[in-house]
Amino acid sequence: MPDRSTFLNHIAYDSVIIGFSGDKLKILLMEYHNTGLFALPGGFVGVNEDLNDAARRGLEERTGLTHIYLEQFYTFGNVSRHQPETMYTILKANGVDDREHWLLGRFISVAYYALINYKNVVPQPDALSDSCTWYSIDELPELIFEHSAIVNKAIETLRANLDRKLVGMNLLPEKFTMKDLQQVYEAILGKKLHRTAFQREMLGSGMLIRHDKQYNGKAHKAPFLYSFRERTLNQTG
Amino acid sequence: MPDRSTFLNHIAYDSVIIGFSGDKLKILLMEYHNTGLFALPGGFVGVNEDLNDAARRGLEERTGLTHIYLEQFYTFGNVSRHQPETMYTILKANGVDDREHWLLGRFISVAYYALINYKNVVPQPDALSDSCTWYSIDELPELIFEHSAIVNKAIETLRANLDRKLVGMNLLPEKFTMKDLQQVYEAILGKKLHRTAFQREMLGSGMLIRHDKQYNGKAHKAPFLYSFRERTLNQTG
Repeated sequence: MPDRSTFLNHIAYDSVIIGFSGDKLKILLMEYHNTGLFALPGGFVGVNEDLNDAARRGLEERTGLTHIYLEQFYTFGNVSRHQPETMYTILKANGVDDREHWLLGRFISVAYYALINYKNVVPQPDALSDSCTWYSIDELPELIFEHSAIVNKAIETLRANLDRKLVGMNLLPEKFTMKDLQQVYEAILGKKLHRTAFQREMLGSGMLIRHDKQYNGKAHKAPFLYSFRERTLNQTG
Repeated sequence: MPDRSTFLNHIAYDSVIIGFSGDKLKILLMEYHNTGLFALPGGFVGVNEDLNDAARRGLEERTGLTHIYLEQFYTFGNVSRHQPETMYTILKANGVDDREHWLLGRFISVAYYALINYKNVVPQPDALSDSCTWYSIDELPELIFEHSAIVNKAIETLRANLDRKLVGMNLLPEKFTMKDLQQVYEAILGKKLHRTAFQREMLGSGMLIRHDKQYNGKAHKAPFLYSFRERTLNQTG
């Protein structure tokens, strides 16, 4: 168990790792040994460690995932998230029977998310957990504390920033077809979209640049390739 | 000075209150008594208080501003923000000469911003501060800790979410003219924009709805009124 003198008291973090591979979104969850309790992978901040570095280290330690681009999106600090009985259950299942343990105090949690292609990664649970597995977004088990609300807010944030995130998160190549783009939108929005309406909206939004087709012998059949335009406003002078 | 048993250790918040009144943006800053130190208004989280409630209460206590819609945008947690000498100077100027004071420890800071029309509000400093004043964004004094970086990130966040924030933040009425809209964009982006290019880009973006002119006897001279369209994607069915 994390030692009190090594970490800042009252501050935790949790990561919503959102997996995508052309179909539904999945979320990476940990299950604690012998408790039936599911949670987001999280951890604590070392006394001499930057917060964002701690989140990356913690994710790596708990899931084996490295080089994940984590983005901070919200800090959860309601009093109602303080549920010492749940934490006591986890401590006890790990052989720590201590009603005065520092982890039973109140913590705020800085939440991060990442969007990754889950076919590229094989998560490895740490010693605390007996599994570390992808769950479909519409079949999540009950989660401890307010972790379900953290997942929902991550998805909401992702949807609100969809156009700016997709390329950065490596879910689309630099250039992509309209069909590729629609598939990603459908997975993230969780609904089917009309092909013609989607195409009209995307082209009308001004956010795409259409590229020349490359001659490949069947050029008349090749779909157009697009890339995202940087969002700017025309400047004087 | 805040009492250790009343507040969560290691957690603070700071608010970037951005004022607008048709011209340049301004930021609300506190100056601490007899120190020459400037800072964002901030505070600490009560042991039985929700984080977001604490930020609202703290803003009210320190500046007298009430009913401000604060939006959380980032949590700053680098080790380098821990500068106990600066905090000791503030404590000492307030008659607290204690090298073991809990406020000399390391804090992470949850940062909030609000965008308001500063002509509507008169800030009132609290007892700790000798002033609580608006400063133009391009004439800010040096700030303690990494508060300048917090201001910059708030402005960056505001710019990135401009279209979704304007109406919600009451800087524009529900319906507005193209000239109103351009004026707000210019203030927030900090640069002049070409009228025709701005109009073309706004209309091309699909984010505006144009409304009928209301007959007022000089209808042929009245400018068109617009409102923001909700961002949606066409759904199947």
